[in-house]
Amino acid sequence: MSEKILFQCDYNEGAHPKVLERIVATNMEQTVGYGEDSYCAQAADKIRKACGDESLAVHFLVGGTQTNVTVIDTALRSHQGVLCAVTGHINVHETGAVEACGHKVLGLPSEDGKLTAAQVEEAYQGHIHNDSFEHMVQPKMVYISNPTELGTIYSKAELAALSEVCRRNGLYLFMDGARLGYGLVAPDNDLTLNDIAKLCDVFYIGGTKVGALFGEAVVISNEELKKDFRYFIKQKGGMLAKGRLLGVQFDVLFTDNLYFEISKHAIQMAEVLRGAFEEKGYPYLVPNRTNQIFVIMPDEALAKLAERFDYCYDHRVDDTHSAVRFCTSWATKEENVQALKSEVINGI
Amino acid sequence: MSEKILFQCDYNEGAHPKVLERIVATNMEQTVGYGEDSYCAQAADKIRKACGDESLAVHFLVGGTQTNVTVIDTALRSHQGVLCAVTGHINVHETGAVEACGHKVLGLPSEDGKLTAAQVEEAYQGHIHNDSFEHMVQPKMVYISNPTELGTIYSKAELAALSEVCRRNGLYLFMDGARLGYGLVAPDNDLTLNDIAKLCDVFYIGGTKVGALFGEAVVISNEELKKDFRYFIKQKGGMLAKGRLLGVQFDVLFTDNLYFEISKHAIQMAEVLRGAFEEKGYPYLVPNRTNQIFVIMPDEALAKLAERFDYCYDHRVDDTHSAVRFCTSWATKEENVQALKSEVINGI
Amino acid sequence: MSEKILFQCDYNEGAHPKVLERIVATNMEQTVGYGEDSYCAQAADKIRKACGDESLAVHFLVGGTQTNVTVIDTALRSHQGVLCAVTGHINVHETGAVEACGHKVLGLPSEDGKLTAAQVEEAYQGHIHNDSFEHMVQPKMVYISNPTELGTIYSKAELAALSEVCRRNGLYLFMDGARLGYGLVAPDNDLTLNDIAKLCDVFYIGGTKVGALFGEAVVISNEELKKDFRYFIKQKGGMLAKGRLLGVQFDVLFTDNLYFEISKHAIQMAEVLRGAFEEKGYPYLVPNRTNQIFVIMPDEALAKLAERFDYCYDHRVDDTHSAVRFCTSWATKEENVQALKSEVINGI
Amino acid sequence: MSEKILFQCDYNEGAHPKVLERIVATNMEQTVGYGEDSYCAQAADKIRKACGDESLAVHFLVGGTQTNVTVIDTALRSHQGVLCAVTGHINVHETGAVEACGHKVLGLPSEDGKLTAAQVEEAYQGHIHNDSFEHMVQPKMVYISNPTELGTIYSKAELAALSEVCRRNGLYLFMDGARLGYGLVAPDNDLTLNDIAKLCDVFYIGGTKVGALFGEAVVISNEELKKDFRYFIKQKGGMLAKGRLLGVQFDVLFTDNLYFEISKHAIQMAEVLRGAFEEKGYPYLVPNRTNQIFVIMPDEALAKLAERFDYCYDHRVDDTHSAVRFCTSWATKEENVQALKSEVINGI
Repeated sequence: MSEKILFQCDYNEGAHPKVLERIVATNMEQTVGYGEDSYCAQAADKIRKACGDESLAVHFLVGGTQTNVTVIDTALRSHQGVLCAVTGHINVHETGAVEACGHKVLGLPSEDGKLTAAQVEEAYQGHIHNDSFEHMVQPKMVYISNPTELGTIYSKAELAALSEVCRRNGLYLFMDGARLGYGLVAPDNDLTLNDIAKLCDVFYIGGTKVGALFGEAVVISNEELKKDFRYFIKQKGGMLAKGRLLGVQFDVLFTDNLYFEISKHAIQMAEVLRGAFEEKGYPYLVPNRTNQIFVIMPDEALAKLAERFDYCYDHRVDDTHSAVRFCTSWATKEENVQALKSEVINGI
Repeated sequence: MSEKILFQCDYNEGAHPKVLERIVATNMEQTVGYGEDSYCAQAADKIRKACGDESLAVHFLVGGTQTNVTVIDTALRSHQGVLCAVTGHINVHETGAVEACGHKVLGLPSEDGKLTAAQVEEAYQGHIHNDSFEHMVQPKMVYISNPTELGTIYSKAELAALSEVCRRNGLYLFMDGARLGYGLVAPDNDLTLNDIAKLCDVFYIGGTKVGALFGEAVVISNEELKKDFRYFIKQKGGMLAKGRLLGVQFDVLFTDNLYFEISKHAIQMAEVLRGAFEEKGYPYLVPNRTNQIFVIMPDEALAKLAERFDYCYDHRVDDTHSAVRFCTSWATKEENVQALKSEVINGI
Repeated sequence: MSEKILFQCDYNEGAHPKVLERIVATNMEQTVGYGEDSYCAQAADKIRKACGDESLAVHFLVGGTQTNVTVIDTALRSHQGVLCAVTGHINVHETGAVEACGHKVLGLPSEDGKLTAAQVEEAYQGHIHNDSFEHMVQPKMVYISNPTELGTIYSKAELAALSEVCRRNGLYLFMDGARLGYGLVAPDNDLTLNDIAKLCDVFYIGGTKVGALFGEAVVISNEELKKDFRYFIKQKGGMLAKGRLLGVQFDVLFTDNLYFEISKHAIQMAEVLRGAFEEKGYPYLVPNRTNQIFVIMPDEALAKLAERFDYCYDHRVDDTHSAVRFCTSWATKEENVQALKSEVINGI
Repeated sequence: MSEKILFQCDYNEGAHPKVLERIVATNMEQTVGYGEDSYCAQAADKIRKACGDESLAVHFLVGGTQTNVTVIDTALRSHQGVLCAVTGHINVHETGAVEACGHKVLGLPSEDGKLTAAQVEEAYQGHIHNDSFEHMVQPKMVYISNPTELGTIYSKAELAALSEVCRRNGLYLFMDGARLGYGLVAPDNDLTLNDIAKLCDVFYIGGTKVGALFGEAVVISNEELKKDFRYFIKQKGGMLAKGRLLGVQFDVLFTDNLYFEISKHAIQMAEVLRGAFEEKGYPYLVPNRTNQIFVIMPDEALAKLAERFDYCYDHRVDDTHSAVRFCTSWATKEENVQALKSEVINGI
């Protein structure tokens, strides 16, 4: 157990008590393996209902990197690549997992972690109109994360525009929703699960960071990507032997709106923290209203803070300032937030 | 929950109650992620002690396919392949995961799931003395499973002979121990964890099938394979965000000999079942004393049995007989074994 | 230059004089690169005509391993594999090139280098009816070589049967024609280029072993495989900068039936040699009527022969006999064949 | 044959007459295959002499993309990547060949096509000091091209600085010398083959663009990269069956300094052309003294020029200007250069 109070990420604790309770309650039941049990079936049904589309394919995988690789390798042939913001998780923090499967990640510039429809259009047109197009990787998928790695979110209009460009040009649109709950309940969000299921070809609903011990629920609307998907899950190591563990967890999370209720808690805690940073006048690296706060602070204050609190160092901004990240989650205790707030305002 | 009693595999239930208890007890503690927490450190220490070697590297991964791929891709350059029995899990049941990482699985014939030192020597010599050796995949690793996919085990003499051939020829020896507990407590076993750690370059201790919700503990003795291993864990999707879940589970399993105690239960249950098959005179496909029983039965009897019990169909032997597998595990209830025994002897 | 007379393979010399003449004649002409020049267009036209189908896509690559990898990686997604005889070139003599692209080669037993329709049907049915089918590599392509690595050829009926199984089950049929010329003019052949183009989804016409300095002409009839094929050629390193070298060579080879005329010479030379072996009563490893002769000879005779002639050692048959290969080609000189014949009959 | 005069690349013609003569003269000789003939041995010797180091390994491959992939895949394990300028050929013009082998290309910004030692140092230090370093691709190789894709060259001091950073940090330094001849005879060059062999771990001497029909000579000084290199050549499709074609060509090119003599011709022709552009006051995109001229011209002038001359369109600079490339080569005819010069000065 850590001696500091941890705000450096949103996966410091285990699972929401209701999730864990259900794992305990079902522990000695016998089920078949590999996600073909009734708990997975039931959880998939609830997710389909939450998305408002009975035709969606839903699969449960263990973790995010694995999910990204599985989806992307399902979608691409070996001469095709995936467009993404240079800040995208697949581009920087997955030890080249996508490339290890043979596909180039085509990074596009981004200040706020988001891609625009115009960027995608330009990249696509630039490819097909290049004389040497066959000497270049063919863009075939667009990867976005929502919320992004910088905590920002897409508006419905932005996502619709991306979707339109993708469909017109035969590109798959894939949303990494590792923190999807925290995006969907953000104060400035206007997207629904239903919108996302309609506008994307495939996306996933993150459990690891939102109430589960682990687990990501992949939702596929495009028929081309549904075919043979379980082969890819197995090959990439994501087919959990005791797959019912994933089913049980998502079943609980999608019962009585739990997934969204616990996400709201994280946002409330983040808003409290933002109050502290704003009171001190610390500028944001990128403003957002989700559970990740990127703030630029004096190094001296950061050193002081680090005695009791853990944050995530991002990068040096100038000789005396750095950008750092504070995360809240479904598990964040109000007392810890108040302690950090008080330290920020009065202590450093 | 299944309506039949399941004997078709050894991962039908969740975790051993003591394991689950500890997950519950530590649930709301904060720890750092990715296996760098104190639970993982403590579990690794206990495993090193159990193996009798303080210099071993120990890492925790989520599942077996993932572990096999991670170890093999760490070990091989792209022109190198891994020798294994044609029945080996990596050769038949991992959807080409090893090939998807670029490496050929070089299958060698085997009736009982085991490789011999002589086979490995012959394969190696055959390669280096072939005029076209550079046109062929270079053998660089030997993969064995213990117990094998057919439930057989290696004797100490057999493993020592394999190890000798491998070391003399610069081949890595890798043991897949997905069911290692069930092998080490088998009545005819003479291997110890310590022997395995000394004779193999890398092996893993399976948790998924022996008391854990999920998880495999990789133990590396060869310095070459220790280097940068965590990069590979991450890239292959095996670096669990809440890595402490793995640490907690293996910590419990390696406290008070629990891993071996619960393995013994599976073996006792299997021995009871063997009594039934032997009483009926059903021949074994391959005899063994571990937790998997491969038996050849009349199709008619199998059909009758299937009304109440689930087994794993293996293959057709002749027009009226098939080979099937029955598994026991740490979780197998004695009453279910007695029910099956009675059905085998009297009911079919 | 070798001091012995070489019969160990069919690529000991350069190009047919007419081919080389044309390379010289066009040497200082300026053309665009990468196979988009008029020579390639013209050669492709001639090949389409020879195959009797204007809709075929024709591409020129440099060598055989490269061609196999390019075709196979174009056809398969990463969970799919290619069925082939265990003796198939891709399975044994390409240093795992197919696996290095992520695909498993699914070897099927074969004594004569050929696959049967029944084998393919059984492998396919065995896959789709296996309970664990998603845990196994999905067969999606069938690779055959004609002539095979053992010099045998497919009859029209055999190829039609393979084609029928493949089409019914959604498998691509791919023929490696590295020595196609030597098969099509064999005395016992009843296949035409037109048959092959109709029955296969893709095949290639080998130039390296039949009159060219190098080069293989890939012919694609299946629309799915035509799409984006040039991306794969480039990625796999087969897009020759001065692509016209390939166009010029195949243009000459497919003018005035040259490809077939020079193939016939190889067959005639092989028939002369067979006379010698048969006179001595040396048995064939596998009988055939193409340009490769696999014969079993006493080691003593082989040692004597090796003083003046080079053959290809295949494998030890018993304590005093080995199987070896003698090849003829378009370039084989009659005087050398007579010298070898005389040595076989009288000298050893 | 093209109707325009081509300046768009440096591989429009065949081979230097002396090279072709020798291919013709040796055509019907018999040699063993796969680069193990005496011509390859002799050519390798001459290259070792030209580099002043008898211990160098020299191998002959067919083309550039293939060579890059072969070298890079030999050097890297799957969690490692290759640093290169964003403009590097492997990053933009090889259809993701490096990624298709599983390795990420780590692009660094560059205006002139070159990397600096400081950039490499920063990238390396940034990796090892990042808290999430195991979640990121490990830089292990530095790829540079000389001349670069923009025609610029490295000075001896620059290359020495790169080499120093690489050796200190355990990175391999790899130089793509597809146009090496044109760099080494440039007026402002101070590097020798000997310097390059000493400062790089591996590099190649391009034949395709400098006098050969095709072919690249890989020169390896680092022992780690020498091991098993031929396996990789074969696997990546670069092991030409009639390997002597490569040996014969490089043997001629490295006899009587031919490689450098014909390179000088290209440079002289480029200097003549530069005179024309400078007289008209057209600015360079990036100035250089090698065989590629990148010049910014009015679109109207370009359109006029295109009626008789072919150049390579690079990119739009503003509404009425574009950057284009003109190449000369060993084969460029003076009369064509004069025609273009005159058109540039007087015609457009």
